[in-house]
Amino acid sequence: MGALDEATAALGLARANCRARQCADIVVMVQRDLYHLMAEIASTTENVARFRVIDAGRVTWLESQIDMLSAQIEMPKDFILPGDSPAGAALALSRTIVRRAERYVARLLHENAIENQELLRYLNRLSSLCFVLELHEDQAWGSEKPTLAKV
Amino acid sequence: MGALDEATAALGLARANCRARQCADIVVMVQRDLYHLMAEIASTTENVARFRVIDAGRVTWLESQIDMLSAQIEMPKDFILPGDSPAGAALALSRTIVRRAERYVARLLHENAIENQELLRYLNRLSSLCFVLELHEDQAWGSEKPTLAKV
Amino acid sequence: MGALDEATAALGLARANCRARQCADIVVMVQRDLYHLMAEIASTTENVARFRVIDAGRVTWLESQIDMLSAQIEMPKDFILPGDSPAGAALALSRTIVRRAERYVARLLHENAIENQELLRYLNRLSSLCFVLELHEDQAWGSEKPTLAKV
Repeated sequence: MGALDEATAALGLARANCRARQCADIVVMVQRDLYHLMAEIASTTENVARFRVIDAGRVTWLESQIDMLSAQIEMPKDFILPGDSPAGAALALSRTIVRRAERYVARLLHENAIENQELLRYLNRLSSLCFVLELHEDQAWGSEKPTLAKV
Repeated sequence: MGALDEATAALGLARANCRARQCADIVVMVQRDLYHLMAEIASTTENVARFRVIDAGRVTWLESQIDMLSAQIEMPKDFILPGDSPAGAALALSRTIVRRAERYVARLLHENAIENQELLRYLNRLSSLCFVLELHEDQAWGSEKPTLAKV
Repeated sequence: MGALDEATAALGLARANCRARQCADIVVMVQRDLYHLMAEIASTTENVARFRVIDAGRVTWLESQIDMLSAQIEMPKDFILPGDSPAGAALALSRTIVRRAERYVARLLHENAIENQELLRYLNRLSSLCFVLELHEDQAWGSEKPTLAKV
């Protein structure tokens, strides 16, 4: 739960620095989804159905955002280094914390503490979304070419 | 200890972005308290008394800051999403890391590795302080209404 | 691995806020080193040699950067509090996450999951580098005296 809370806050840091309106709008929708995701995980087995918002439909929505954003830019052919813009770096930080949350949710599923597989799929796709959002924000901040990991 | 160090750094990120002088002044006092809190946890049983600074009086001070700041603003009636300002988002991030540190200190107390209960109370109240500071900073940055988790 | 990824992202947040060109250039070289460090840790025992980039030479380079940066400024005589500039605070956050990664790599070495001792030495020196970079950036942002932990 803590990692999900941290991920939401890191996404907030990204949102506060976003220069592309499109990106900020997507981030706020993701933050709303994470809020519901946390509510579902925090709920007891008896009332979990009442809290379920994240389903296959939300994962499909997430994937459609990734496709839409990817189509608008040239995807880098090699590993990039975060830091070409404040918003992009905050999105990279969000991505790494989302991955920490993903490992935690995978463990909960494995231990049968939760049973909604879509939560894990959502977080898995969310790190990809953070990556394309990072590329968009770097461009919106004027970075022409991403800084590559290998030279 | 690591989580406390991370919390202090995240509070630094907040402080560097604060627009309300009142908030920055409170954050620096909290950072000083966390410095003493870490020194106490790092000390051995023999010399712990020499490092003790965080006591019921510091918790009372913290609570008075929460009350003072809460009285100045309208408290939101629903869950809010971090990201309405850079300082507010950094305070939200600080809050989530403080909660991680709180779980760690709770474990140390439970295992009798430390015995000063006020350390846990301080961290518990600190996450509430981070929340009201976030609301203040969002306002100081010109956000008129907090972004709500539910629409 | 996650902690190393988080450290790279936090360094990105620092880099995006750097005002001293010298600091940004050093950070990007460190991010490249961390990329190779992660590749080495992720590799299997059979192909690890192919991924080895971090060696005693890279640690010496890191130490020379610390010496060079330290010689340019007055080192504070007491503990400082992060938050005198956005870049400085992001460097402090990076330092605390690097230390988390360092504990993780120390465990891997202890469990013989990896054998390259230079990875640990690199991370150990990296937190010192983050500290001097923080002092430099605070100055580059116009902070005349560091905020001290004790008053």
